[in-house]
This record gives sequence, structure tokens and C-alpha cells, in this order.
Amino acid sequence: MYNFNAGPSILPRTVFEQAAQAILNFNNTGLSILELGHRTDTFQAVMNEAIALVKELMHLDADHEVLFLHGGASTQFFQVPMNLLNENEIAAYTDTDIWGAKAIKEARLFGHVEVVGSSKEANYSYLPKQLVVPKTAKYLHITSNNTIYGTQWQDMNPFYETGVPIVADMSSDILSRTLDFNKFDLIYAGAQKNVGAAGVNLVVVNKNILGKVDRKLPVMMDYRNHIENGSMLNTPPVFAVYVCMLTLRWLKEQGGVPAIEKINDQKAALLYSTIDKLPIFKGTAAVEDRSKMNVTFVMDDAALEKEFLALCKENGMVGVKGYRTIGGFRASLYNAMPLEGVQALTALMNDFAQRKG
Amino acid sequence: MYNFNAGPSILPRTVFEQAAQAILNFNNTGLSILELGHRTDTFQAVMNEAIALVKELMHLDADHEVLFLHGGASTQFFQVPMNLLNENEIAAYTDTDIWGAKAIKEARLFGHVEVVGSSKEANYSYLPKQLVVPKTAKYLHITSNNTIYGTQWQDMNPFYETGVPIVADMSSDILSRTLDFNKFDLIYAGAQKNVGAAGVNLVVVNKNILGKVDRKLPVMMDYRNHIENGSMLNTPPVFAVYVCMLTLRWLKEQGGVPAIEKINDQKAALLYSTIDKLPIFKGTAAVEDRSKMNVTFVMDDAALEKEFLALCKENGMVGVKGYRTIGGFRASLYNAMPLEGVQALTALMNDFAQRKG
Repeated sequence: MYNFNAGPSILPRTVFEQAAQAILNFNNTGLSILELGHRTDTFQAVMNEAIALVKELMHLDADHEVLFLHGGASTQFFQVPMNLLNENEIAAYTDTDIWGAKAIKEARLFGHVEVVGSSKEANYSYLPKQLVVPKTAKYLHITSNNTIYGTQWQDMNPFYETGVPIVADMSSDILSRTLDFNKFDLIYAGAQKNVGAAGVNLVVVNKNILGKVDRKLPVMMDYRNHIENGSMLNTPPVFAVYVCMLTLRWLKEQGGVPAIEKINDQKAALLYSTIDKLPIFKGTAAVEDRSKMNVTFVMDDAALEKEFLALCKENGMVGVKGYRTIGGFRASLYNAMPLEGVQALTALMNDFAQRKG
Repeated sequence: MYNFNAGPSILPRTVFEQAAQAILNFNNTGLSILELGHRTDTFQAVMNEAIALVKELMHLDADHEVLFLHGGASTQFFQVPMNLLNENEIAAYTDTDIWGAKAIKEARLFGHVEVVGSSKEANYSYLPKQLVVPKTAKYLHITSNNTIYGTQWQDMNPFYETGVPIVADMSSDILSRTLDFNKFDLIYAGAQKNVGAAGVNLVVVNKNILGKVDRKLPVMMDYRNHIENGSMLNTPPVFAVYVCMLTLRWLKEQGGVPAIEKINDQKAALLYSTIDKLPIFKGTAAVEDRSKMNVTFVMDDAALEKEFLALCKENGMVGVKGYRTIGGFRASLYNAMPLEGVQALTALMNDFAQRKG
């Protein structure tokens, strides 16, 4: 079976096997990981390794701290401005997807938001370029990959050149491609795509940008408290962190981000070339902005779409349906999706096009 | 092995077995529960069953809504006043443990707090009675069971009689004893004791108390949004909810709350009578306030304490150590701890006392 779901989504088979074993008997402790005290040395070692692996895989410098926090990216939509933006200050946001729009809505509760680029009018099918970011902006918020509409920022240089701290929601493409992660001041990602299972948030933050807002923050909302406590301020989502650790370990074994990027490039190239070759399928995102993580496409004929979806299911390919409010198709090609999965899908597409064409 | 940890803590063995199986192949879908889309019918059924089980086991009326939210009780410390307390209003709080004190600190960010009872001066060893709660208080916040110091409110009637909405942190004794849960307007509990695994919060809220504050709430912080979306406002902590569902199912199979309460009473009675009988051990909580969930006790001699702890470990009893900042012993007797576990512990205590006495 190949799982093309957009999230929660496919993880390496070895991760499932190790996670199942840990639930029955964790590291020969005789205890399940689900009943393990989070202050035990055994779990502290898991947390330490997860944090160390993120630092290593992302080549983070000493200013960048790694946190595993409760909640998903939706929690970060308000936690970011709560920590970084005073009421009278401006934050620049890009509006490139439903998620970016939600982040904007939350930021407006805390300060001024200037939307410096939007493709909403074109149903988010492309990414706005030549953004003008005010120098006074406290930060610029981008969504690095747009899960629903299948676009992805390919060139980060224009952002780096703004001179403004960059905050990125990388939920759906973190650790999938080589980037200079130290150029970002805050990165967040719901784990349930490339990092692990649902129920935990990975946050990477440059500690120098913290502590500059006037408002009083709830203890659990202040990133500094989590840094100080090594993501153990309260009971962490123990099992979710463990699954992240296993997935990060797997990524390292694959050769890290550069190695997985190579395979991700092959997968995306194969699927996009198949879409472009077969007239029955149509890619929905602007070619130069196409995402390597979420490939969105449609057919002109809704009945045929339904037929193809059924065919996918019959052939053990699940999650190919587009986002619930959008329709069409979306194949998510996260790190754990093997090239063979995309080969199977494109074979099915070729076959279907030949029969219907 | 018997796990007396205070949380994360022991869960039924059958829950571990089913959870491990679901990670390898969930309900014969061929998919792991960790890769299952949360909008699938398969997961929706899990969420529905978990919510229905809470309603059934707690005999909730139609006004009381059940939510599974991200975060732990520490998140609720601020989410509660954020939703219920205006800046110029008063909330009454009891200060009966480190956790209650943390809740007070967070509430002060949002409005006025009147501490109507505290046993802090006596190291939280008893529960303050004859509380005077101002009629103008928006709510009264209590911690139903105090995990660290081993006290538990035995009689809820004085709270009901205040006429003020009652908010209870029931993290460490929810579903362990029969209570009229409908008399509470908001109940919250980090799941990692009686409800399931760490990484999710159970919230039971009377919907009529919501929507009365002036402040604008972040989308993820407004309980009403979670009610409206059936705890699926964003990607929920899928696996943690699943473990809750399994644990709730197990509780129902045991005969529900009245049946488990009977066993909990037996376990606590056996352990307390052993402490009281053996002069070498001393209970630390006031007798009338003793918790049936967390039994705290000490010895006069620190060297002997160390020796007894080592003996517990040798005999497969883990987690008997007191809270990290307190010391001594704490045996947590949550629902999943069988009577046999307490029998094994008390046998060891008897044997130890005889040898040392």
C-alpha cells in the first residue's frame, strides 16, 4: 500500500515497527513508552536525541534552539505574534494558502499586519513575487510550502535580502530540501508530515529575537520557558516526541537532508512529467512554483476523476484525493514516500490515460 | 512489574497491546494509525467513540460538551481564565498544591484572583475547609486531587453550595470515583493518568458559560471553536486520542466508574492501613484529606528510604519515589493499577518493617 495523504501521512515502516515494539516494551525496561515517566533518564535520552538530531540535520548554529511543543501549526499561528509582535508594531505576512490566511487572522489579534503578497484572487495557484517588505516590520511570515494548493517557494534569497527576521511555517516541507535554516529566525512545523506523528510541533527559534514584547505571556506560551526547560516545562507529548526521534534517526540513516532531497526531486520530476505528458491530467499550480511535496492536479471530467480515485484505491494507493474543500487530486510525496510509490501511481495514470484517451 | 508512577503512568495491558497492533495495521486498513488522515471515516469513528464514552461514563447532560485538546493541564491554566474571566472580574481559586498555585499565577494575567483557601503554609499537607467564596466570583477553581502532596477533596457539596460555577482540574483523579460531574461547569484533565497517554487534554465544559468574555480569543484557544468542530478544528493528536478511546473502552468493560471506584477504595485502604500499622512509615497528608490516587509517605531515616526504594526496584515496583522536589515516597494507584500491585507493595513494606523494626 502507498499512502499519499497530506498529513497525518506516511512514515517509514521501520518507524512503525520500532514504535509498536516500544509500546509493548520500551528499550527492555519492561515498561511501555506510554507509561514511562517523562522525567526518567530513559525518556530524557529520547528528548535529547530528538533535539540533537534536528540540530545536526538542519546544521543549526548556537543561537538556534530546538523545541518540541504541544499543539499543531495552528497553535503557532497565534503563539508567534504573541511572542514577537507588540500592539503598535507591524508584521509582514504572505497570503499564499488557507493556512497563511489563518496565520494572518491570528496575528491581527496582537499587532498590525501588512500583507506583502497574496495570490488569493487566483485561487492561490501561484506565489507572488517582488514582495516589498517594510524595513520596520518586526518579521516577515511565509508558508514555505502550501499543502493545499501545491505551491512551494523555490528561491528563498529574496526573503533573506529583506533584512527582516523571517518566520516560516514549514509544516509540509521541513527537512525535505537543503536550505540555510540559520537564515530563519523562527521555523515551526506540525510534525505529522516529515517529522513524525500528529500531536507535537517542532519549533526552531533564534533565541535573540525573544523577550522583546511588552505583553505578559502565559507561562506555556513563552518560548523562553520551553528553551530553559529543554521542552520539559510540563509533561511533553512523550510518544509523539519518540516517533519524531525515530523518524529523524531514519532520515539521518538515509544520508540526511541532501540525500532525501535527491530522491524527493526524482519523485516530483516523475509525477509532474507524467501530468504534463498526459492531456487528461492538468497540474493546477504555476509551473515555476510547483511543490515537490504536494502535487495537485485535476481532470476536466468529474466522473473520470471519481473513476481514477476508485482505481487508485483498488491498487492500494490511498490519500490521492484533493483537499476536502477543493477536490481534484493531491499526491503528497513526503520524505517517507519511496520512489516506487510514485512509479506505481504514474504507471496507473499512464494506463488510465491510454484507456480513456 | 508494577508501575506506581504519578504520570505518565500505568495503563491497562490490553490497551498497550491494541495500541501496538494499531501502529502496525489499524483495524485491518493496512495503514498505521500514525499515518491515518484525521478526516478519514476511520479516525472520525475513533473520535466519536471517545467522546461518546466520556459522556456515558460521566453521565453528562446535554449542556456538557466533551473536548480532546492539544496540550496538558498547564495549557488549561491559562485557557480557562482566557475564556471565562474579564479583566475587571474576580475568580476564586484554592491553593492546595504546586499545580493550583500555577493555575492562580496564570489567571492573574487575565483578571482578579481571590485565593479563598490555601494550605501552602503547612506544605500543602491538608485541604482548607469552610471556604468563603464571593458571590460575584465568575467561577471557583479547585484541584480535585493533589498529585504531589497526596490530598483529595472528599466532599464536593460545599463547592456545589457556593452557587458559583465550579472549574476543576481533575487531571489525577478523573473517572476514578463517582461524582455528579454535571455539577461542574468546566473539568479538565491531562490524559496521562486515568484517561490515556500524554499529549492530549480532556475538557468537559458546560457550553452555557462560554462566550461571555470581552477579549478576542485566538481561534485555537476558544473552546467554542473546538465544540463546533468536534475536537477536529485542526489536526488532533490522533494517536493520543486513540489511546484514550481504548482506555475508556476498558473502563466501561470493568463496569464503569462505580466498579473501578470500589477497587480504588480497596487499594487505598490497604496501603493506608499498612502505613498506619507500621511505625517505620509515616503518611504525610492529613488523614481526612488523604488521596486515593496518590499515596504519599516518608521515613524518618533518609538512608532507609533509599534502601526501601532500591528494594522496590529489585522487586519490579517502579515509580515509588516522591515528587522530584519533595522526596519520600509516592505510590500512585490509578485505575489501571491492579489490587495485586498494592498487595505486592504492602507485602514488601511489611517485610521491610519487620527486618528493620
